[in-house]
Amino acid sequence: MPFGYGLPAFFLAAFADGSNVPLAMLAVFGAAKLLAELFERLKQPGIVGEILAGILLGPSILGWVRPNDMLSALAELGVLFLLFRVGLEVKSSELLQVGKTATMVAFLGVVAPFLLGWGIMWLWGASSIESVFVGAAMVATSVGITAQVLASKGLLSHAASKVILAAAIIDDVLGLIVLAVVSSLARGGINVPELVFTGVGAIGFTIVVAKWGTRAMGTVVPRLEQRLKAGEVQFNVAVIILFGLALLAMYAGVAAIIGAFLAGMALSDSLQPRVHALAHGVSELLVPFFLVGIGLHLDVSVFSHVETLILSTLILLAAVLSKLVGCGLGALAMGRADALRVGAGMVPRGEVGMVVAQIGLNLDVIPASVYGVVVFMAVATTVIAPPLLGLSFRNVRPASPGD
Amino acid sequence: MPFGYGLPAFFLAAFADGSNVPLAMLAVFGAAKLLAELFERLKQPGIVGEILAGILLGPSILGWVRPNDMLSALAELGVLFLLFRVGLEVKSSELLQVGKTATMVAFLGVVAPFLLGWGIMWLWGASSIESVFVGAAMVATSVGITAQVLASKGLLSHAASKVILAAAIIDDVLGLIVLAVVSSLARGGINVPELVFTGVGAIGFTIVVAKWGTRAMGTVVPRLEQRLKAGEVQFNVAVIILFGLALLAMYAGVAAIIGAFLAGMALSDSLQPRVHALAHGVSELLVPFFLVGIGLHLDVSVFSHVETLILSTLILLAAVLSKLVGCGLGALAMGRADALRVGAGMVPRGEVGMVVAQIGLNLDVIPASVYGVVVFMAVATTVIAPPLLGLSFRNVRPASPGD
Repeated sequence: MPFGYGLPAFFLAAFADGSNVPLAMLAVFGAAKLLAELFERLKQPGIVGEILAGILLGPSILGWVRPNDMLSALAELGVLFLLFRVGLEVKSSELLQVGKTATMVAFLGVVAPFLLGWGIMWLWGASSIESVFVGAAMVATSVGITAQVLASKGLLSHAASKVILAAAIIDDVLGLIVLAVVSSLARGGINVPELVFTGVGAIGFTIVVAKWGTRAMGTVVPRLEQRLKAGEVQFNVAVIILFGLALLAMYAGVAAIIGAFLAGMALSDSLQPRVHALAHGVSELLVPFFLVGIGLHLDVSVFSHVETLILSTLILLAAVLSKLVGCGLGALAMGRADALRVGAGMVPRGEVGMVVAQIGLNLDVIPASVYGVVVFMAVATTVIAPPLLGLSFRNVRPASPGD
Repeated sequence: MPFGYGLPAFFLAAFADGSNVPLAMLAVFGAAKLLAELFERLKQPGIVGEILAGILLGPSILGWVRPNDMLSALAELGVLFLLFRVGLEVKSSELLQVGKTATMVAFLGVVAPFLLGWGIMWLWGASSIESVFVGAAMVATSVGITAQVLASKGLLSHAASKVILAAAIIDDVLGLIVLAVVSSLARGGINVPELVFTGVGAIGFTIVVAKWGTRAMGTVVPRLEQRLKAGEVQFNVAVIILFGLALLAMYAGVAAIIGAFLAGMALSDSLQPRVHALAHGVSELLVPFFLVGIGLHLDVSVFSHVETLILSTLILLAAVLSKLVGCGLGALAMGRADALRVGAGMVPRGEVGMVVAQIGLNLDVIPASVYGVVVFMAVATTVIAPPLLGLSFRNVRPASPGD
């Protein structure tokens, strides 16, 4: 671990035992916003600056901050509220309308990176189980980054945005199945009934909430509002539904953020603008922790070998191109411009790829150097996606900039 | 540790390693709001329900949740944003106007509980250093609870509320000096220069920010707003000033929440209503963690001895009466009704008393049973204060209910 250029012990102590919450908040939030400002001035996406703030503060460069329980919890809360807020701006009927295109996008966007990642590793001389794991780690899109870019540019109502969001949900379910298959392979065999059970549960949960959630909330929220007396009723109900659906999503086998997104979508017709603003406050405060958290995970020390550096570049190129081309092909019926937008929106892998690589590392089927390669791919795709999105949407006028 | 009636391992695992953030959030937030609702229906303050939710979930009864880093961080963030939000509704000029009364209130509200607590312990047969520590633990008012009650009832603009807030700040500085003195005593001697330095630093910081903060922010915020480009500029600047002043307050020797309050007060003229709503969202989400956190610290197992139970009752009575009478006397010039309101508002001790007791425990000058007594006093005063406040303010019409 390269231990920075001053102050590291001071910072690490404050973060490690959580004894100095103001310092931890100030350092992470302040660094994120400082770099966001710098990037905006250089006409680059602020979100990239916030991820780079994490790389800068983290073990890669300064070594002042290391990932810990408190920062992870704030990061997870941040991305949950981000997806909830994005859900609030989306109508489920509109997502269901683009279901067919989104399914194509998701499917091709899973197959292409898996095959490409697996192929590269196999040609590189890795074992077949190692190749399969790297392929699997390249599958799942992390929709948080794209959602943040689209929301901040006021582009959530664009047709391509709907396809991206719907495809990201389906992608998450497919990614779950891929992960279940490769994990079983690594453990020695596939349990087909369990796999079917998991798949059906995940798909069932998502469809039920997407299809009937809005109507259910339209009935439940006004009644609760009439009957409950304590404080900000709508906000409290919204928070409980948000975490409740996030939890159910986890039990159903999909990511908690999918549950949060579905909760937002189900509640989009039932909440007052005031509650939107309250939820927006939470995500404004905590999304920087999600972005910085991504950067914190990168450890550049893996690149001391030239070989690893070459492999990282190859895998990164494969990760970007396979989603751009795979997802783009799936959305080609919308025209080339929209196909490119959809492809760019599906590029970021973020924390999902890291989780898969972590499992592979724990199961001892991928070595530490390959784990580093996958983490690099996951972080780098999130850094590349915002400018790609900006480029692909450059001729589109926002519907409601800022919020 | 009494380990509950079902599910404890499941819950403890989710909380201990932070692996299940949605479950942790749902359990704490949900239980708090459920009990708040129940209490409101019984015409009791919802805030008391939220503290009792912590007692219920904590080691005292169910044993499902134990205090941990993540919950503590969320609790501290919650109370920081609460005090910030309260500061936003207060003008520093108004606080400085009541400075004289507030100083009397704070001074008598420090002397009375210290002498009473020390006297009871001494008569009870404790050593003089133990008696001094218990007295010191009864000194510092925790203004969070009172602030929450006053804010939620729309009473922050009432004259008694201003005196309470100003007195709580002075009380914090006095409490710091008392703590410094007794800690030095326990360690063997008083370092007078260090003590003077600490006192002057704390008082200086508070006066400078209170007196010139508003004007400084009135100049700084509009300029930053013109020059910065990234996202929600006002909110980001406000968050950075909030944590910056909280941190400076800690270094100056006062509580971080005093810094957060001063930050809110300094910014109250410069921020748009939208930014108030964003900050309100954060406090709505996180204040329950502060309240539940207080309840979590209680451990009823100390009351297995009748002696401890009697001592606890005596200390609790002394804690309530000494603030009611001491602070009330200090505010008597405002009339008897307002004096009672001020006294009631200064009753809660919350986490501040617990910290003092913790120091005494670590220095080995108070035994575990007396530590339990102090924690009981700290929690019980926060439970008693809201109904006392409700009673004392029952004839006052709120200026702006709800927010």
